[in-house]
Amino acid sequence: MDRAPEWRTTEWFNTPSPLSLADLRGKIVMLTAFQMLCPGCVAEGLPQAQRVAATFKSSDVAVIGLHSVFEHHDAMGPAALRAFLHEYKIRFPVGVDAPDGPGLPHTMRDYGFQGTPTTLLFDREGQLRRHVFGHIADLQLGAELMALICEQPVAPAGISAETSGVCTIDGCR
Amino acid sequence: MDRAPEWRTTEWFNTPSPLSLADLRGKIVMLTAFQMLCPGCVAEGLPQAQRVAATFKSSDVAVIGLHSVFEHHDAMGPAALRAFLHEYKIRFPVGVDAPDGPGLPHTMRDYGFQGTPTTLLFDREGQLRRHVFGHIADLQLGAELMALICEQPVAPAGISAETSGVCTIDGCR
Amino acid sequence: MDRAPEWRTTEWFNTPSPLSLADLRGKIVMLTAFQMLCPGCVAEGLPQAQRVAATFKSSDVAVIGLHSVFEHHDAMGPAALRAFLHEYKIRFPVGVDAPDGPGLPHTMRDYGFQGTPTTLLFDREGQLRRHVFGHIADLQLGAELMALICEQPVAPAGISAETSGVCTIDGCR
Amino acid sequence: MDRAPEWRTTEWFNTPSPLSLADLRGKIVMLTAFQMLCPGCVAEGLPQAQRVAATFKSSDVAVIGLHSVFEHHDAMGPAALRAFLHEYKIRFPVGVDAPDGPGLPHTMRDYGFQGTPTTLLFDREGQLRRHVFGHIADLQLGAELMALICEQPVAPAGISAETSGVCTIDGCR
Repeated sequence: MDRAPEWRTTEWFNTPSPLSLADLRGKIVMLTAFQMLCPGCVAEGLPQAQRVAATFKSSDVAVIGLHSVFEHHDAMGPAALRAFLHEYKIRFPVGVDAPDGPGLPHTMRDYGFQGTPTTLLFDREGQLRRHVFGHIADLQLGAELMALICEQPVAPAGISAETSGVCTIDGCR
Repeated sequence: MDRAPEWRTTEWFNTPSPLSLADLRGKIVMLTAFQMLCPGCVAEGLPQAQRVAATFKSSDVAVIGLHSVFEHHDAMGPAALRAFLHEYKIRFPVGVDAPDGPGLPHTMRDYGFQGTPTTLLFDREGQLRRHVFGHIADLQLGAELMALICEQPVAPAGISAETSGVCTIDGCR
Repeated sequence: MDRAPEWRTTEWFNTPSPLSLADLRGKIVMLTAFQMLCPGCVAEGLPQAQRVAATFKSSDVAVIGLHSVFEHHDAMGPAALRAFLHEYKIRFPVGVDAPDGPGLPHTMRDYGFQGTPTTLLFDREGQLRRHVFGHIADLQLGAELMALICEQPVAPAGISAETSGVCTIDGCR
Repeated sequence: MDRAPEWRTTEWFNTPSPLSLADLRGKIVMLTAFQMLCPGCVAEGLPQAQRVAATFKSSDVAVIGLHSVFEHHDAMGPAALRAFLHEYKIRFPVGVDAPDGPGLPHTMRDYGFQGTPTTLLFDREGQLRRHVFGHIADLQLGAELMALICEQPVAPAGISAETSGVCTIDGCR
């Protein structure tokens, strides 16, 4: 499987420097694409992302927001987004999906998002393993994240993977 | 780690024959101990158990209810439980924790339940791995169940465990 | 309009003596008919009745529960109901609708309840003004109760009703 | 009691022409002051206002939104508000509280709002009868609105008020 395309962003919040998929290699990545004026994102998608960030260890799962604005562009610029993140107490890193004029932003188009919210799960290798438009239940999402956490990292030559094998939400050994 | 004690029951619903922990060896077991007149069980614990039964494959996770009556014994006998299970559309197997007169029923006492609802998670070997009194969030529970699913079964001698390693909610390979 | 038929009961809880519609004349009466093993009653109807009891003054609105058992009779006898009321912290008076063998209890049949929960609203004169099977939204119910509170009591001869006219949730003057 | 001060607005949505309190005389007015980036307004205050608009007859109760921006002014301008109202399907008239530079907008200051959401209830005469900051339960709000609906309008000289007296949610007669 080929690695997933890099996301394309113009600005970041809640992180000292921009984040790329490559930077996060070694961790599971959950990316929540949203729009600040999308009711389903505000009521469901973003609170779920906050719960994931609060439940999993940041060394296992990186939660990333992506502001993929495809409508009402003038209402959802960076200043508005900054205020929104503050008011909704969203603390995980959020990137702004690179606009392409009045059309779909670049990452949205590259990945073929059907709308917002969209949830992407990437494995430790940076491969896209799950793409969900709309709602995914917490129970299912928790299970899918742990399934990715449990996967054996590719062992460097000469190191046996056999010592791995027992994973809990507190880590694998 | 020693295997967990067998539960002690006097009657079963939603199953053609009684179930023991030993019978379920090889599967993850989630046991939800409840009382039919316990508001937290009715509002939270039992609906969560129904969601687990609907989300995970029955070949991976066995969901078991245990009716551990420690108060209002005359109101929660088997006939009442049967009506309750029918009205609340509970379809997974439910055992009646063996009463010990007016006191705590046997399994409740053996395991030291603090009350109801109580959730127990057993691994494929029948070892108790988690004991929760009260609420556990769906996201956490989904992750914990998958962590147990992902654990390597004990490999028979001569068979390498290396072919395992990739698990999803649809199974491990 | 004729006065509504008296309800027929065999036992009462949460009241020192049985209550009749006639006893409550002068107050608005909200009667919630339920079964203790009816999921919609437990999740919606009874909590709403508790909110009404907590919101309106008891001198304006009398909240009455009626246990109208029409199925699973052996699971919902008086001892079971007593335990249920205790566990669910239901403090308003609850009468047991008089059984008629294995069929519909008397009040249920007299009033033509379609099932449970059923909500009846009676005015100060004891006339039935509203009969709802299933759910009624809090906003609507609050308005309907206040509409009944606001109605002018029948003024005794020689007393002008003109002094009435301003009602709030704290009373009318 | 003096009539309440007129609200001061600079722009309106969902109405062909600006609305004043004076225009609405004869109706009960429920004004919900909000900010589009206020989580409590989005989750509670505005949905409640939508329920009121759907439950009461528009000839009895006029539901009005007031966008009282006191923070993040650059994120909540009229273009952003227009997009917000569209996405959240808010159909009742919404006025923009007249800004006063970076400070509190005029109506907010005139009425002494403590924050958003704030709910004001005005009677048919345009007098302010209720001022709530934060949450008010639907049951209570429904009752308070009906109490105001039930109040006798001031009868013109020579017309008896005695024909009034029976109100329901479908009107008074």
